[in-house]
Amino acid sequence: MTIDAVSIDATAFLADFASMSTHGATAGGGVDRQAGTQADGQTRNWFRGLCEARGFEVRYDRIGNQFALLELVPGAPYIAIGSHLDSQPSGGRFDGAYGVLAAAHAAAAVRDAVPEDEAEFNIAVVNWFNEEGCRFKPSMMGSSVFTGKLDAEQALATRDPDGVTVREALQSLRTIGEASLDLAAYVEIHIEQGRSLEDAGATIGLVESTWGANKYEYTVHGEQAHTGATVIADRRDALFAASSMVVAAREVAEQFTDDDGMVITSCGEFTVYPNSPVVVANRVNLLMDLRSTDPQRLAAADADLRRRIEAIADRESVEIVRGAEHLWDAKAYDRAGMELARECAEGLGLPHRVVRTLAGHDSTNLKDLVPTIMLFVPSAEGISHNEREYTSDEDMIAGLRLLEAVVARAVTGHFVAPR
Amino acid sequence: MTIDAVSIDATAFLADFASMSTHGATAGGGVDRQAGTQADGQTRNWFRGLCEARGFEVRYDRIGNQFALLELVPGAPYIAIGSHLDSQPSGGRFDGAYGVLAAAHAAAAVRDAVPEDEAEFNIAVVNWFNEEGCRFKPSMMGSSVFTGKLDAEQALATRDPDGVTVREALQSLRTIGEASLDLAAYVEIHIEQGRSLEDAGATIGLVESTWGANKYEYTVHGEQAHTGATVIADRRDALFAASSMVVAAREVAEQFTDDDGMVITSCGEFTVYPNSPVVVANRVNLLMDLRSTDPQRLAAADADLRRRIEAIADRESVEIVRGAEHLWDAKAYDRAGMELARECAEGLGLPHRVVRTLAGHDSTNLKDLVPTIMLFVPSAEGISHNEREYTSDEDMIAGLRLLEAVVARAVTGHFVAPR
Repeated sequence: MTIDAVSIDATAFLADFASMSTHGATAGGGVDRQAGTQADGQTRNWFRGLCEARGFEVRYDRIGNQFALLELVPGAPYIAIGSHLDSQPSGGRFDGAYGVLAAAHAAAAVRDAVPEDEAEFNIAVVNWFNEEGCRFKPSMMGSSVFTGKLDAEQALATRDPDGVTVREALQSLRTIGEASLDLAAYVEIHIEQGRSLEDAGATIGLVESTWGANKYEYTVHGEQAHTGATVIADRRDALFAASSMVVAAREVAEQFTDDDGMVITSCGEFTVYPNSPVVVANRVNLLMDLRSTDPQRLAAADADLRRRIEAIADRESVEIVRGAEHLWDAKAYDRAGMELARECAEGLGLPHRVVRTLAGHDSTNLKDLVPTIMLFVPSAEGISHNEREYTSDEDMIAGLRLLEAVVARAVTGHFVAPR
Repeated sequence: MTIDAVSIDATAFLADFASMSTHGATAGGGVDRQAGTQADGQTRNWFRGLCEARGFEVRYDRIGNQFALLELVPGAPYIAIGSHLDSQPSGGRFDGAYGVLAAAHAAAAVRDAVPEDEAEFNIAVVNWFNEEGCRFKPSMMGSSVFTGKLDAEQALATRDPDGVTVREALQSLRTIGEASLDLAAYVEIHIEQGRSLEDAGATIGLVESTWGANKYEYTVHGEQAHTGATVIADRRDALFAASSMVVAAREVAEQFTDDDGMVITSCGEFTVYPNSPVVVANRVNLLMDLRSTDPQRLAAADADLRRRIEAIADRESVEIVRGAEHLWDAKAYDRAGMELARECAEGLGLPHRVVRTLAGHDSTNLKDLVPTIMLFVPSAEGISHNEREYTSDEDMIAGLRLLEAVVARAVTGHFVAPR
């Protein structure tokens, strides 16, 4: 079969995308569908209906990953295509959701186009649970459990700030089950969340590798005191120490970035207790991450940051405890998969370029389990995790066409060999 | 009459103090009685009962200040004695509450001891509403409205983080009314919230003046983005900018402190939005304060901090907006009142010293309206706004004896002259 054998219905896709974006919609044009919330549950139910209407069978696994299955070859393993429908608070409507909806449309189109005797694999569209990790930590929870990197019981027992567990949240939404999936390969399409495609005028990113990422949960313990009445020498100020850590992390990024490579550091979550005026804070919880394309550079930056944090603890007489850590190595995606995607993009006349991803994705986990292809479409101005996140209809449709072509090849045994 | 004519019942005071400390008690030995909460309401009702049982008439004014009145001379103005029963979250049980209970015991003892024909004034025990300012800002709200420094309607319309107004909170507790008070003088006793008395081995602090204090609410506006996918050059990171402000404020304190004087700066409240991992924060709200004994030093430090904050906004491409500001000048308490308190302390054989207060108190407001005496008892290790806050029984009783002596003099016309 040729790529042209797959026909896409751009109008239907865009209509479904608009319908999807109403779930958890925010006034600012984005969505708030944090994992396990009512808005996430509504989106999952809506997606279930969409898939069942197109002949998919929908199942959930023990960590709430949602599988929409098309059986083309009874008993054969699956080519999975997916991403995530959950979002950040006041997040954008493209991040993750575009990839899941594109997967469903691509899967249905391939099912309709591929002759019965050419199919070698079944198709699973996957909505991975809790990619964002805002309500329940860590991020990429569903794909981490699926790939055996995170213990399922530990994940299910994770509590949100109100004490609700993942298990309780999934049970209340009735989106937990016992399904499992025999996987042969994985394909994901996602917005870039960076500006390299836009800057280069490319429509498609062929993801070559992930950056390495180290994420740490820190707790800074100080001593509660009266801000007005306690002279600075007598303070053990958790907020000042934590602020110094945020500043130190930026200094580390600058120190370890030069013409040969880059380190990026961030703190996105920073919670102060008791967080009251005229009270010196007794505790701050914060999350820090370091990322780099280069493992050695990352390790050196990480060691330097730790030294700086120890110095802050000493100087401010606070205790700084490092809690859970999540480390992802800089790793390459499947080389043959990338070449397959490049051929398809060229066949479709889509301008493409090779990129690396700074952001973590479910494919970051999946690529360590099965051959994996990761594709990007442009994200305007690189804006993401923001209500103003935007990808044009043209770019979404171009990505969908490429995804269909890649999946058609994979299902017919041109990515991984049939068993 | 002599000081000896006043008899105190130490056992009854300590029993009442223990009973009071059960309201809003925390597991750590402190209290959580933020203004306008159920715990604050319970404490107010308990205090009302205590006062009414001792013959006081209890009234509330329009901002929820609680007055317990003893009429000794019909139509005469009042000598007010007071402090506040509200607390910080996980605050100590002495801060404010000691002074209010001591006021009630002192007032009742003076009423019983002073011969009818020697009284020149009536006595009001006052529990000022919302001295702490944690749930509703600003601090010292009740005494600020009473002294005309804050508009009552503005204060009543102030909302807590859940959107509840001061008016709604006070109405739901039924602790709002229309009482007013013709004041001749004010006396307050409070724990020091610093270590100068303990360090000097003194039992009584005679407060000479306040420090000047500038408090500012700042909002830092950045741009929400994906921490992993957004290179640092493209970020407008509100959390990094706000952390830099906290560090800059500390640098200002160090720069403007030398052998001749001191500047103290603090940030106690710092709230990050959306406060999610892997999201560059789009907004941080924070409160900063600067304090100094020396107005010129304070002004210079303030100007320097503003310059630094402007530089941070420039460098990080964030917008830093200064909202409400609350400025208190460094001001002296009534000199004659301090001398009167000194005489009483010497008459009682209590070791005393002259101190300044870094912390704001209700007396900071009252002293600008009427002649005011401010007294301190020691606070162990200077610990305050902390569950471990501690003042010994001996020191509490010594303070109570002094307060009774001072109030007896004031009521008989030896502080301010009868009209």
